Amino acid sequence: MIDCFRRLPGVGSKSAVRMAFGVLSMSQEEANEFCNAIVGMKQGITHCRVCRNLSDSEICSICSDERRDASVICVVEDTRTLMAIERTNDYTGLYHVLGGAISPVNGITPDMLEIQTLISRLGDDCVKEIIIATNPNIEGETTAIYLSKLIKPLDIKVTRLAYGVSVGSDLEYTDGETLAKAISGRQEI
Amino acid sequence: MIDCFRRLPGVGSKSAVRMAFGVLSMSQEEANEFCNAIVGMKQGITHCRVCRNLSDSEICSICSDERRDASVICVVEDTRTLMAIERTNDYTGLYHVLGGAISPVNGITPDMLEIQTLISRLGDDCVKEIIIATNPNIEGETTAIYLSKLIKPLDIKVTRLAYGVSVGSDLEYTDGETLAKAISGRQEI
Repeated sequence: MIDCFRRLPGVGSKSAVRMAFGVLSMSQEEANEFCNAIVGMKQGITHCRVCRNLSDSEICSICSDERRDASVICVVEDTRTLMAIERTNDYTGLYHVLGGAISPVNGITPDMLEIQTLISRLGDDCVKEIIIATNPNIEGETTAIYLSKLIKPLDIKVTRLAYGVSVGSDLEYTDGETLAKAISGRQEI
Repeated sequence: MIDCFRRLPGVGSKSAVRMAFGVLSMSQEEANEFCNAIVGMKQGITHCRVCRNLSDSEICSICSDERRDASVICVVEDTRTLMAIERTNDYTGLYHVLGGAISPVNGITPDMLEIQTLISRLGDDCVKEIIIATNPNIEGETTAIYLSKLIKPLDIKVTRLAYGVSVGSDLEYTDGETLAKAISGRQEI
């Protein structure tokens, strides 16, 4: 049991022992519920056929929501980024989950990502803009450039999240590279 | 002596004692040098007549540098922000140091800042753009809006540092407000 808990991210040996004792102190019903949640998750969760996001149905709740703007697709690396963007309550378009970023160092090539499924979504003229929201690091940037080269010839607008200063931060402590991008990306007010 | 050190920012009672003993263990020459640096700084440092930055001469080294682009003025709250922007090695224009930001809560009104000196610099047609680089918080935003309303009627372009994601950061952990600004400020690639 302790070994099982240790396999979870962020759980060390001491936490694993604490958790195992936590299970011991559960009632039989609670333990069953926990057990069913684990098995059910592995069996019930699949990838949305359209956007490749995690979903418990063939088409996820975002893709099947008709109120969302189908002319914009936001491309993210994983479901966690998608959830972060959803939490802003500010984006009403659709998503596409790549399942990672291009990284020659880690042996991740474009064909290992959900890029072909993305391109196949652009067939009809419905999509007007692709927002690339890969992480602002080397792998994410590489992926963004790769995608923009693929998509631009299809006559679809390709945009990237703005680089700049964080809301509520202090310019004195902002790293130089971000500050330089905030200056070069300055906007008229 | 200990009381003197305690008045410095970031110095508590224990550090102050350590510093006082540090002075005790200095040679007479070192102590004199330290003393002269303190007195000399108070006497020698003044504000640049043009940009109000700290300077040891009437016109600071940036304002008197003819290689710098005099058509752009970057407005900052204090010298520390100016130094952060200088460290990027990316900005070649001039500066104007306000000496703070408008803050009704702290009783700082526009007339307590170096705004009049800024406006008087815009008299000749030399200046084409004002980049407002006040801090990305409420006071900084208030100041930015106030300045833009003052300067725009003079037919000078007013810009603001871009809001967005930090270089090398992780979107999953970016705060929602910044992420929303990064999406709305997205740029075509």
